Parts: sequence; structure tokens; C-alpha cells
Amino acid sequence: MKKTFLKNKKNIQFLIIGLGLIGGSVAKRLSKNGFEVLAIEKSKSHLNYAKKSKIIIGSSEKIDSTKKLFVIVALPPKVIINNFDKYLDFFHKADFITDCTSVKKSLLNKIKKNKLESKFILSHPIAGSEKSGFLNSNQDLFTDKITTISKHEGLSIPTLQKCKEFWFELGSKTHNLDPKLHDKIFSLTSHLPHVVAFSLISLFSKRNTSEYKKFIGGGLKDFTRIAESDPVMWENIFSLNKNNLLKDINEIEKEINKIKTFILQDNGRKLKEHLKKIKKTKESLNR
Amino acid sequence: MKKTFLKNKKNIQFLIIGLGLIGGSVAKRLSKNGFEVLAIEKSKSHLNYAKKSKIIIGSSEKIDSTKKLFVIVALPPKVIINNFDKYLDFFHKADFITDCTSVKKSLLNKIKKNKLESKFILSHPIAGSEKSGFLNSNQDLFTDKITTISKHEGLSIPTLQKCKEFWFELGSKTHNLDPKLHDKIFSLTSHLPHVVAFSLISLFSKRNTSEYKKFIGGGLKDFTRIAESDPVMWENIFSLNKNNLLKDINEIEKEINKIKTFILQDNGRKLKEHLKKIKKTKESLNR
Repeated sequence: MKKTFLKNKKNIQFLIIGLGLIGGSVAKRLSKNGFEVLAIEKSKSHLNYAKKSKIIIGSSEKIDSTKKLFVIVALPPKVIINNFDKYLDFFHKADFITDCTSVKKSLLNKIKKNKLESKFILSHPIAGSEKSGFLNSNQDLFTDKITTISKHEGLSIPTLQKCKEFWFELGSKTHNLDPKLHDKIFSLTSHLPHVVAFSLISLFSKRNTSEYKKFIGGGLKDFTRIAESDPVMWENIFSLNKNNLLKDINEIEKEINKIKTFILQDNGRKLKEHLKKIKKTKESLNR
Repeated sequence: MKKTFLKNKKNIQFLIIGLGLIGGSVAKRLSKNGFEVLAIEKSKSHLNYAKKSKIIIGSSEKIDSTKKLFVIVALPPKVIINNFDKYLDFFHKADFITDCTSVKKSLLNKIKKNKLESKFILSHPIAGSEKSGFLNSNQDLFTDKITTISKHEGLSIPTLQKCKEFWFELGSKTHNLDPKLHDKIFSLTSHLPHVVAFSLISLFSKRNTSEYKKFIGGGLKDFTRIAESDPVMWENIFSLNKNNLLKDINEIEKEINKIKTFILQDNGRKLKEHLKKIKKTKESLNR
């Protein structure tokens, strides 16, 4: 990608809001690439560590008004919305703003309400992990990952271009995805699986004896990875994607009930047919 | 382990009933270890291939009545029960019999009914995979795996010892587990996760567009592995472990409903607390 906005590195400052897994990884990569990085982070120890190790040059006091300000908001989605006004000054100063969250629609409403739709673009790097926090961040987190970016009404073309350049700078590919469709797709492919995994581990916790523990390798282990994900982040995501997610939860309940009914009725023939169809779907995903 | 029953290899014949993933792997390892292996298998091509490649020396016509017969039944659990009478002659001739299935109680009833409890012992190698069939079998499938073996009333001590030696010969450790407790534990740790994974992929198949497909990495991918498992095997398991599994399905429905209710009531505080507890359970599983 030919850089136009990011080529003059001395002319730009990045302000990262939130130094968690995502924000920390963004900061590490940008500073390594020679950019000036500032950060706002409530954990004093993480902020100091980031300063000492030259990942950032400081916090908002280091904003230089003669330079262009690129703001990357790397907070859980509800935390952004609830604290939007607190960061409005930075948003107004900024030349470019993006987020990194897994729910889009409610944040877009907030952006429009504050008339920031020209320079605030929605991003979602598919690079999350059950390992959360600054201590797990690393400069290569986005390498060869996909980041969805969402065009919306009122977005300026230079903002879209800056967003593509920004993720390219971090090693990620970008993929356009409408905000509404984004929230529907991620409800099914990510948020619902998390609901189910959390539920399975919750049930398991009620029988968590050493005998049970010995045998989680037979299937349950596949579910435990994502059940270790950050509770604050996932409460935020479940709450904000409420409508899509409740619909999908109802759908999965129907699916589970379908298998339950076949078992209850001793209908082995139909159960076998049903599982065969599912295996075919799964095989089509490998292609 | 000091071998007593398996030390004189020329004195023993193994008859494997069913050359699938498990039976094929047993046959490959035993023949490699220098034992005489026979097999009963409905697929003529697999049987011929196994003969040509010297994995087996033939089928039941090769039974030598001057030698000890060890029978390994490697069929799906309902298939064993429905065809039990067909194999009774071999069971009566045998010195030792074991199975390899994931549901125990109903097979044990069948064994007792036929007064075979002294020499027929229940085994379950935790070595299953979403890859099924003879073509995926391999001689190292059981290496460093755990096999549960179930003591039951009327079992002779030499049978228990033979069973331990047999799995040791294949590279597996053994672990005693009561048949009833076995079925309860595997209902939760293996059978229920399969129900849930099949359900998620079934729901996904209804929205299986290329856009959805691009983003299954965000959580759903963890579930797809086991949804590729053998439909016949899993119909058998679900049907035979009906009572335990229906109880666990009801429990997981309650767990999912708990999260649904928190979302529905916008009760972020309780939802967060709930997810925090689950994360702790998950972390305790890593220890």
C-alpha cells in the first residue's frame, strides 16, 4: 500500500486510549515503527512501564498542537460509550479517530450524535484472545490478521484511507463490513460461542471434582479457551449487542432442543440424519 | 509393567471386531509389536488392505483353537449391543474380551445377561478424534493417552490384569472408573459439548454465507472440530447415555438462560460477577 498520510512520521502523534491487550499491542508496534506514541491509561504502573521502556513518550500533556493527532480508542465498547464525553476534547483536536471493538451500532450512534462521523471510523481487529491486558500485548498481534472497517454515511474518504494505512502499518489486512451486518455476524460467530462456552464452564464448576477434571480432554477442552476471556469486556459486548445476541440465543436453544427431542423420542434415524448434515456443513468450512 | 499374560506372543491371537479409527489403530500397533491379529470388518476393501499390508493375518476363519483368544470389540456402542448375539460364539471361545466405547452401563447389562462378566471388561481409551475410520487409524493413537477401565461385580482378577497389560502394550495408561460414574462424567465432559457444538454448527449452516464464513475465527472455530465427528458414533452415544445426557442438556439450558436473563434485564453488574466466577473456574483447570 502506498502511504500518503503516514509517510511523514515526524508530523504525527498517536494517542492510544487504554493500554490493554489491543492498545498495548498498537503502541508497541507504532513506537517500534518510529512513531510518537502517547497513551491514556488508568493503571499508573502500566503507564510508567510503557514510558520507561519507550513504548510511549508520555500521556495527553505531551500533545503537540503543531502535529496531526491520530486517536486510537482501545477500551471495551460500553466503557467507550459511557466515557465518550470525557474524551471529546481529544476527539475534536484529532485528525483521525478509530476504535477496536466488537460491537459497532451503538458506538456509531454516539459518533453521529457528536457529529464526528467524518473523521471517526469503526475498526475491529480480529485479534482478540482469551489472554487480556497490557502484559499479554505484543507488537506482532495484528500481523496477518483481518481488521474489519465500517464505512458509514458521512465518513470522509481521507479517513477511510488513513484507517487502511493505519492497520496496514500494524501488519493487518482490512475488510469493509457494514456496521449492522458486522454486529449480526459477530453475534453468531463470536458472541454466541462465548455465551455457550461460559455456560458450559459454569455448569462444569458445579461438578468440578478431581475425577471430572481428569477427563475434560474428551470435548470440553475446546470450550475452555474462550471461557477464560476478560469478564468486563464480554459483559460489555453482550450488553451492547443485546438484540442480535438474544435472537441468536433463542436460536441456539431451539437447536439444542431439536437434538434433545430426538434423544427423548429415541428417534435414532432422524438424529443420525441431522448429525450427518452438520458434519457436511463443518466439512464445507474446511474448504 | 511386568507382563504375565502377554509375554508368550506365539500363544495368543487377537480378534478385532471393527476396523475403524480405534480398531485399526489397535490392529496396527499389535501387529507391529509381533502379535497375531485377526479382524472382522464389513468393509471388504479395508479388510483386504489390512491383510495385504500384514496388519492382520485374516478374519475369523484363522482362529486357532490351540491358542488363547483375546477379543477387542471396536464398534460404536449401540452397534455392539444390537449385534451382541452375532458375536457370542467368539465371546464364548475368548479368554479375554474388552470394548472401547464411551458409554458403559447398557453394555454392562448385556454382559451380565450373557454371564460374561468374569472375562468381559469395559475399556474406554480417551483417544477419540473428529477424524474417524480406518484411514485415519495409526499405531501411535494410544501413546500416552489415558484409558478408563471399569471394575464390575463378578470380574475376575486375571481379566483386570490382562486389560491393564493390553493397554500398556498399546502405550496407554489405565485409570479405574466405576461404570455408572463413567457415564455421568463423560456425559458432561464429552457428550454434552458435542451436543452444543453440533447445535452451533447447525445454526451456523442457516447463515452460511461467504461473509459469515470469513469471521468464524472469533470463537466459533473452537467448536467446529468436534462437530465433524462421526454421526453414527455420536447418535449411538447420545441414545445410550440418554438419561445422563438429558439431565445435562436441561442443566446447560438453565445456564444459558441465566446469561440470557442478565442480558435481557440489562443487569451488567450481575453478568460481570457471573463471568468473573467462570473465569476463575477456567483458570483452576489450568493448574
